[in-house]
Amino acid sequence: MKFIASKTDLQSAVGIAIRAVPSHTTMTILQCILIEASGTNIRFTTNDMEMGIRTNFYGTVERPGTIAVEAKMFSEIVRKLPEEIVTFESDENYNVLIRSGKSRFEIAGRSGEDFSELPNVERDECVTISEYTLKNLILQTIFSISTSENNKIMTGELFEIKGDLLRVVALDGHRIAIRKVALRDSYEPKRVIVPGKTLQEISRILPGEVEEMVNIFFAKNHIVFEIPGTRIVSRLIDGEYFNVDQMISTDYETKLTVKKNLLLSCLDRAILFVREGDKKPIIFDIEDQELRLSIESPLGSMNEEIDTLKEGRDLAIGFNPKFLIDALKAIDEEDVTLYLVNPKAPCFIRDESYTYLVLPVNFIR
Amino acid sequence: MKFIASKTDLQSAVGIAIRAVPSHTTMTILQCILIEASGTNIRFTTNDMEMGIRTNFYGTVERPGTIAVEAKMFSEIVRKLPEEIVTFESDENYNVLIRSGKSRFEIAGRSGEDFSELPNVERDECVTISEYTLKNLILQTIFSISTSENNKIMTGELFEIKGDLLRVVALDGHRIAIRKVALRDSYEPKRVIVPGKTLQEISRILPGEVEEMVNIFFAKNHIVFEIPGTRIVSRLIDGEYFNVDQMISTDYETKLTVKKNLLLSCLDRAILFVREGDKKPIIFDIEDQELRLSIESPLGSMNEEIDTLKEGRDLAIGFNPKFLIDALKAIDEEDVTLYLVNPKAPCFIRDESYTYLVLPVNFIR
Repeated sequence: MKFIASKTDLQSAVGIAIRAVPSHTTMTILQCILIEASGTNIRFTTNDMEMGIRTNFYGTVERPGTIAVEAKMFSEIVRKLPEEIVTFESDENYNVLIRSGKSRFEIAGRSGEDFSELPNVERDECVTISEYTLKNLILQTIFSISTSENNKIMTGELFEIKGDLLRVVALDGHRIAIRKVALRDSYEPKRVIVPGKTLQEISRILPGEVEEMVNIFFAKNHIVFEIPGTRIVSRLIDGEYFNVDQMISTDYETKLTVKKNLLLSCLDRAILFVREGDKKPIIFDIEDQELRLSIESPLGSMNEEIDTLKEGRDLAIGFNPKFLIDALKAIDEEDVTLYLVNPKAPCFIRDESYTYLVLPVNFIR
Repeated sequence: MKFIASKTDLQSAVGIAIRAVPSHTTMTILQCILIEASGTNIRFTTNDMEMGIRTNFYGTVERPGTIAVEAKMFSEIVRKLPEEIVTFESDENYNVLIRSGKSRFEIAGRSGEDFSELPNVERDECVTISEYTLKNLILQTIFSISTSENNKIMTGELFEIKGDLLRVVALDGHRIAIRKVALRDSYEPKRVIVPGKTLQEISRILPGEVEEMVNIFFAKNHIVFEIPGTRIVSRLIDGEYFNVDQMISTDYETKLTVKKNLLLSCLDRAILFVREGDKKPIIFDIEDQELRLSIESPLGSMNEEIDTLKEGRDLAIGFNPKFLIDALKAIDEEDVTLYLVNPKAPCFIRDESYTYLVLPVNFIR
């Protein structure tokens, strides 16, 4: 195999492909990028058995062929190449020679034979959404998935389509994040659980341009994301997602509107007094038009007052400040509104396009 | 104690003082900043028993006094204070209250009684040097000290004054870094070993302004660095430093001038093939006006040619690329000149103001 391509193209393709290379695995072939060259096309494929990526770019192919190279080393070499024009070639013994300017790199490649092909997914109806919107949907919810494998379903996100509405849900038992977005077209109803790992990698791969579109294909066991030049195939998580609508209520006794940044920086000060492992709540004392936040721990204490717009009853309620911080950081708006019922009931931060639910924490005074 | 000061002043003083707070210690008092307020002066003192720092700034002192507070927590609080005006007060039970805007922080302080005072160093003759020069002298040599405590002397740097010349030397058994600088005045000869840790912290504290000056005082067992508002006192390392002049030779058989950045980026590519622990040398093949660099390891191989200006004999010699990279990074000049004798003799990279010596590594072909 022999091809000539630009460093820029190689670098961006490696950057995408490496997202499906597992950092730890006993199957060394999974740590490789499969490189295929034919026509005027270079194709990189990677596959960690849950998610697979295939990305294409233009090159001058002088001798078509296939080879697998260790992804990390190859990526480092590409990054450090001195010139823009790069010649890549391999011989029948899988020796790889990479040249650029006066630099010559030789590494051992391997046959692509035992490389696991990407699953062949039937792609019929395709849902179209802008890169920017999809990237935001992921970033504004992904922090609420569970990191524990105890409940596999919680490690994924629900992608649900009803008509022209896409709803994305993440929950971990302490909180829920929901984002809704209107699609350009209407589609058949869909309801699948996408692994959080896949979504995290997709959010990193997506450049997030408003104009560029992502095509999403829903199959029985897989989901496929396509952006120009690149296809990402992921397994879905088996099982029935939680009935989220049952957990959501719109009743409230206290409605509190505050400047998001004021609340956020106050919570950021409060977490100074929280140490890993202990669960010191921050206490909200809502009285008249004032919100008084306080936290007390063996490390010290803090309290602060914030002006609010309040409707309804006074209330004292405790929260894990980290959960509130995560939710507030995912909100772009300048003002946020908190809906509360009592010290045992969840707090809702909500708007037309989002709902963040945070469970309160008991506290003793 | 009660004083009012600005967040900016507090933050910069904490940033300086915390440099002498050890990250691990069994003596909890060493993890504290001693805060003293009197007149219109606030003073922070820290001391890790090797190095001590005292820094002063202006404040409105309403009630003079002394207290010790845990440095890390205090630094975090100061960093997160919401407003510029900060009120600091403590009561007879060492409870500390810090207020800023609508935020109130309470932490437990402690008596300053068991805080170790800074050593009282006699300060007579003082050597003056610009912050910028001192900071550079340190940064351009410190990477060559030894990180192993086996030979205490190698963990420090020689500061040597002869007439109006200051020479700074660092060595670790594989390499030597020497920087020379002319001082504005002439001084009595001095020759002391300053702990590397002290110099590292000083390089971080020094803002590196060309106009601002540092006063250095040399005492029997201590060295003192003074910049406006701040004094840093450090123990010296006991013992006789190596006779560096004996190690340095100006004879050479091969003189090679190259573009520093070309050599540096080539070496940076070569270290791709070096893994922690193995000692794969990069081989310099000097033939005519060309320098051919090559490295071979189980991970693969690389080679590259660089144009040079050569005087003298052809030569093949091996080096640990990391040592050359460190030295080249410390050099500002566009061109560097390497002086070589044979494959067993050290390589000198040198100019009027610097000498970097790197020992070669054996290699088999």
